[in-house]
Amino acid sequence: MLRIDYRNVLQDQVGAAGYSEGQLNDIGQSAVAAVSRIEAETGKRAYRRLPSDKRMLADVLAMRDRFAPGCENLVVLGIGGSALGNIALQRALNPPFYNLMAAGARPGPRLFVMDNIDPGTLANLLEVLDGRLDRTVFNVISKSGTTAETASQYLIIRRLLKERLGDGYARRIVAVTDAAHGTMRAISDAEGYATLPVPDGVGGRFSVLSAVGLFSAAMCGIDVEALCGGGREMVERCRDASDWRANPAALLGTLYKTANDRGQRIHVMMPYADALMGLCDWFRQLWAESLGKLHDLDGRLVRAGDTPVVALGATDQHSQLQLYREGPLDKLFTLHEVERYAAELSIPADFPDDPTLATLGGKELGHLLSAEKRATEYALCVSGRPNLTLLWPRVDAEHVGQFILLYELATSVMGLLLNIDAYDQPAVELGKQAAHGLLGRKGKPYEELAAEVGRTLARDPKYLL
Amino acid sequence: MLRIDYRNVLQDQVGAAGYSEGQLNDIGQSAVAAVSRIEAETGKRAYRRLPSDKRMLADVLAMRDRFAPGCENLVVLGIGGSALGNIALQRALNPPFYNLMAAGARPGPRLFVMDNIDPGTLANLLEVLDGRLDRTVFNVISKSGTTAETASQYLIIRRLLKERLGDGYARRIVAVTDAAHGTMRAISDAEGYATLPVPDGVGGRFSVLSAVGLFSAAMCGIDVEALCGGGREMVERCRDASDWRANPAALLGTLYKTANDRGQRIHVMMPYADALMGLCDWFRQLWAESLGKLHDLDGRLVRAGDTPVVALGATDQHSQLQLYREGPLDKLFTLHEVERYAAELSIPADFPDDPTLATLGGKELGHLLSAEKRATEYALCVSGRPNLTLLWPRVDAEHVGQFILLYELATSVMGLLLNIDAYDQPAVELGKQAAHGLLGRKGKPYEELAAEVGRTLARDPKYLL
Repeated sequence: MLRIDYRNVLQDQVGAAGYSEGQLNDIGQSAVAAVSRIEAETGKRAYRRLPSDKRMLADVLAMRDRFAPGCENLVVLGIGGSALGNIALQRALNPPFYNLMAAGARPGPRLFVMDNIDPGTLANLLEVLDGRLDRTVFNVISKSGTTAETASQYLIIRRLLKERLGDGYARRIVAVTDAAHGTMRAISDAEGYATLPVPDGVGGRFSVLSAVGLFSAAMCGIDVEALCGGGREMVERCRDASDWRANPAALLGTLYKTANDRGQRIHVMMPYADALMGLCDWFRQLWAESLGKLHDLDGRLVRAGDTPVVALGATDQHSQLQLYREGPLDKLFTLHEVERYAAELSIPADFPDDPTLATLGGKELGHLLSAEKRATEYALCVSGRPNLTLLWPRVDAEHVGQFILLYELATSVMGLLLNIDAYDQPAVELGKQAAHGLLGRKGKPYEELAAEVGRTLARDPKYLL
Repeated sequence: MLRIDYRNVLQDQVGAAGYSEGQLNDIGQSAVAAVSRIEAETGKRAYRRLPSDKRMLADVLAMRDRFAPGCENLVVLGIGGSALGNIALQRALNPPFYNLMAAGARPGPRLFVMDNIDPGTLANLLEVLDGRLDRTVFNVISKSGTTAETASQYLIIRRLLKERLGDGYARRIVAVTDAAHGTMRAISDAEGYATLPVPDGVGGRFSVLSAVGLFSAAMCGIDVEALCGGGREMVERCRDASDWRANPAALLGTLYKTANDRGQRIHVMMPYADALMGLCDWFRQLWAESLGKLHDLDGRLVRAGDTPVVALGATDQHSQLQLYREGPLDKLFTLHEVERYAAELSIPADFPDDPTLATLGGKELGHLLSAEKRATEYALCVSGRPNLTLLWPRVDAEHVGQFILLYELATSVMGLLLNIDAYDQPAVELGKQAAHGLLGRKGKPYEELAAEVGRTLARDPKYLL
């Protein structure tokens, strides 16, 4: 199982910026109360049931069996919660240069997750795919079908497929969308796309263990059953509402809420494994969008939310560590330590006379990386910077599933501790409407918004250099 | 030229979190004084002369002409300042799927920048390169040769090359290292590697426009002369010490220092172009390592430094924008707007009856991305969040060169405004020594440190879940 070592948040370890047993216990009591509420309620916490949804899993695997044969390229069209989980699973569980490996050396098609609308990127992808569209599957992920970025990509791809492949184009598309409603559901039914459902009652950022994240993972040879198994294990482990120290989600909620109370409002995730970077980016959305809220549930102005930051060990020791050790006391660090890496490589002992090269010689590369993690952890402690470590026995599907549920549940706990709604995103809407207005959409509120944007952002030569 | 629109930092635009003309003018006076000092001094500001160094550029181009023929893969071994600039130039100025393009469609070899020591990543690279080592160039970048990460990679690669290629192995290595001293210089001379110099008096994070960043860029077909030309233009533009509003580096220094004074100590870089993400990661090191300092130049404990954060538009509107609009007032946002993207793609108007799809239909994809940028800028203003925009006419070598010098000079200005040494990194050393100790290096301070790390980080079951 994933383990959590949190000794380095204590005052004994890091001095004044550390936490006292009393502080932790006070918040820990609230955290286990939050766990009880999560256990008692269902509704918005429906994500907890995803890893146990056998029918969903069977549907995903059947769809994989249908589309995998002959598929050379899989392109995901999605953004936010319809892309970050897909990227995270691929980076965690397939090799980093997967797309460059020979087809026979890979367990599935090349994977491209298109989560932006930069025309240079999409044009370059089409160049790379040129001539192979008949062996490419496009996985459109959008609950409604009206997300502007995904809809635009879809419209471009659909036209291209029709031009190149004729009437068979619909067989290249798998839509993950609402089971009954919305634009993409209507189009899928009319045009005969294969579809998988976006689950009801689960927000985008909590949806990775549904068809949203699992279809692309299964296509690329990832063991989605083990992923869900890990998720179920963590759900079980986080049911205990008796002791915050015994429940991983309550423990994390306690630590992060204490950091928040202490003004350490930047939460740095620093994995010592390249494979974990995608999961940290996924966490970044989960944390920011769930907990960044202007008002609490009683309507008070609170401007809640901590800023998630991702740094990579050992790389960012040469970029961010100077700031982390000497800058403001505004951070809590979550380091990730991996006990067994995906490969072993020995460093040759070829220069015995150079003291540095001689020290490295004969060691495993993973041993060096682990030593650097321990050294950084120590250096943070010496500088009085609270930190905790997530211990990964190895980065495999089971532990990735555990991680996902652990942080989803910790987010739910944090939402209750902050007394905010962790499941909405009210601030995202205005920009969407304004963008539609700027594109010329008629009617309310689009036209007025377009005019208002023009007035607000008119360039003033005095402030333009 | 790059332009800066900073109207949205004003109180008139964003209310209470905005800046007054008086605040800006006060800090602006100090910023132009800083510019005068930078102009008068040389020494540590030697990076300003790099874009004018014609001999260095000629040496880089000659080395490219020597190694480019027949080269299919270029692997950079470096970390921190010996990798971030290389990645930034490649991402900015070559297509995103460059390594997947057919050899004839690319202007140079595939590029791999190995800036971590994850054994899974290196093992997978070696698998991808298998059988082609005789057509691969390894560009080792290390001033001293004793950086543990780069030295370890180098030792592994050197042994492999010797085993596979025999005595000719040295012809596959180009070392960028100190011209006269250090471990890698001695090895290069003894083994007969081609070398290019790391410039004297220029710190790693300011070295991208030397052989450190330019050799790999030139190998990959990037116009390094235009890069340097852009750099020179910005150096000239930032000489004016008469008016902070007329000097881009003084202007940025003024804005970021005002943010710092106002407690907005998270500096978010949000480009609306995939190509700019690498430059933002490069900025992240420049800003954090230069300005994150415990003491000021008078020895006072200041814990200086703002935390750089990178977000991608439009993608992170679906991940971070909720927090940015509703969370704490602890951020200044620098948006990047691109006037002309690398490609044009039209969104087909194929569903005239759906109001969303009809709005998108007929528009250029780049137009949508620009509209989203303007909409986000507007939404930040409505939420009272100060922001500025860097305006890129297009992302090409000249403007990238301008950007690099602009932010290097702004860092120098910020260093003077904060009264700290922007050119050292004293906090990085302890972790390096501790890691060597953990690897078993004998003598002072390594053995004692290893023992101290063991004591400090001993796991306590009470704090381990």
